[in-house]
Amino acid sequence: MSLVVVGSVAYDGVETPHGKVDRMLGGACTYISLAASYFTRVSIVAVVGEDFAQQDVDLLTSRGIDLEGLERVPGKTFFWAGVYSADMNDRTTLRTDLNVFAGFQPKLPPGYRSQPYLLLGNIQPELQRSVRAQMNGLRLVGGDTMNYWIADHRAELLKTIAEWDFLLINDSEARMLAGQNNLRRAAEKILGMGPHTLVIKRGEYGAILFREDGHFMVPGYLLQEVFDPTGAGDCFAGSFS
Amino acid sequence: MSLVVVGSVAYDGVETPHGKVDRMLGGACTYISLAASYFTRVSIVAVVGEDFAQQDVDLLTSRGIDLEGLERVPGKTFFWAGVYSADMNDRTTLRTDLNVFAGFQPKLPPGYRSQPYLLLGNIQPELQRSVRAQMNGLRLVGGDTMNYWIADHRAELLKTIAEWDFLLINDSEARMLAGQNNLRRAAEKILGMGPHTLVIKRGEYGAILFREDGHFMVPGYLLQEVFDPTGAGDCFAGSFS
Repeated sequence: MSLVVVGSVAYDGVETPHGKVDRMLGGACTYISLAASYFTRVSIVAVVGEDFAQQDVDLLTSRGIDLEGLERVPGKTFFWAGVYSADMNDRTTLRTDLNVFAGFQPKLPPGYRSQPYLLLGNIQPELQRSVRAQMNGLRLVGGDTMNYWIADHRAELLKTIAEWDFLLINDSEARMLAGQNNLRRAAEKILGMGPHTLVIKRGEYGAILFREDGHFMVPGYLLQEVFDPTGAGDCFAGSFS
Repeated sequence: MSLVVVGSVAYDGVETPHGKVDRMLGGACTYISLAASYFTRVSIVAVVGEDFAQQDVDLLTSRGIDLEGLERVPGKTFFWAGVYSADMNDRTTLRTDLNVFAGFQPKLPPGYRSQPYLLLGNIQPELQRSVRAQMNGLRLVGGDTMNYWIADHRAELLKTIAEWDFLLINDSEARMLAGQNNLRRAAEKILGMGPHTLVIKRGEYGAILFREDGHFMVPGYLLQEVFDPTGAGDCFAGSFS
């Protein structure tokens, strides 16, 4: 029994006030599955190019992550580069090269299809839907999305999350999705879109879990040093699931 | 036995996305003492002008607040006007008329001087210090300050808070006072300035209480409707004390 995780496996170029790395392992699927691997068995569905390094494969397998669904195809792995603001609360994307991710059509290995738990990382809503459709014994399904899909692919996104048990998004995405600035009212509206559980992430301030009968807030752990926030929300999602 | 509260009693003109009021009772001392009056007996030290309305006096006395230290002098009551941003997380000051507050020299009635608890609302640090000096049996003293005093009256402010047990400020003020962006490190530095207890207010996200041996976080209560945040921090301070 395992958690199936779908999303991007990527290389990231990241610059923070603490330093700069030109290329390191990243991607939502990577962060989610590494975090989730501390709590359960994980099987991933993703695509990488010929440049995907053996040491990165080794890192994932060292955590017991099932890579049967990790396709390797001709071309280069998805690459993203960004730079963070001085307080690391904002970031600017410098480059997004979809590469092999542009033609990604997730195909689930037969062994994955009857798994009970599915976490859909932030990718095109229609791909999230196609993965959901390939599973046949789901007990719990949910995922993440982002401002781009909310603003420009709204109809497709609504169709997609209507089939989910939970949605995990941040506060500005929740406000955008609901068209409502007050977080409590935004949550009510989103719970009417399908998911019975909504988790709103508030960065350093923590998170709030909403259900029809109430909500539960947790403050964020106060760090003495923040080095690089890339993937923090995905790690949270992986641990949550 | 009562809590002595020092600060401004004012009239405010406030505009929020929900509406506009040209003139209503406001001021740190007002909000602090009204909030504190639900938990203890309160004695205030403040100044108002000849225009201070009987209905506002009545409101304060209806909460059992001791007004012996409320001076009434020729001139007009302190007036502040501001407008809030659409999400009410920012505000712009439109007008500040100090009026009678410009010449305010707090004089404590004899009955106040032996009280055990003192809360110093946000006013000139030297006035906060002069009040502190008039008290002779204090068990707990603390207060609030703001960016203006931190930036432009730093030496005076440091001398003032060195004599306090607790300091209540918001997150951006804490960062400014400590010259340190990380909140946990900022708190450590501020605890080295005198107060043994520091409360950092984070607006809608709640508050953190820091002491030498650790910290305690509480998330903010999630409101369905925010009508006017003016005085929220002062009400929090009053309830805390």
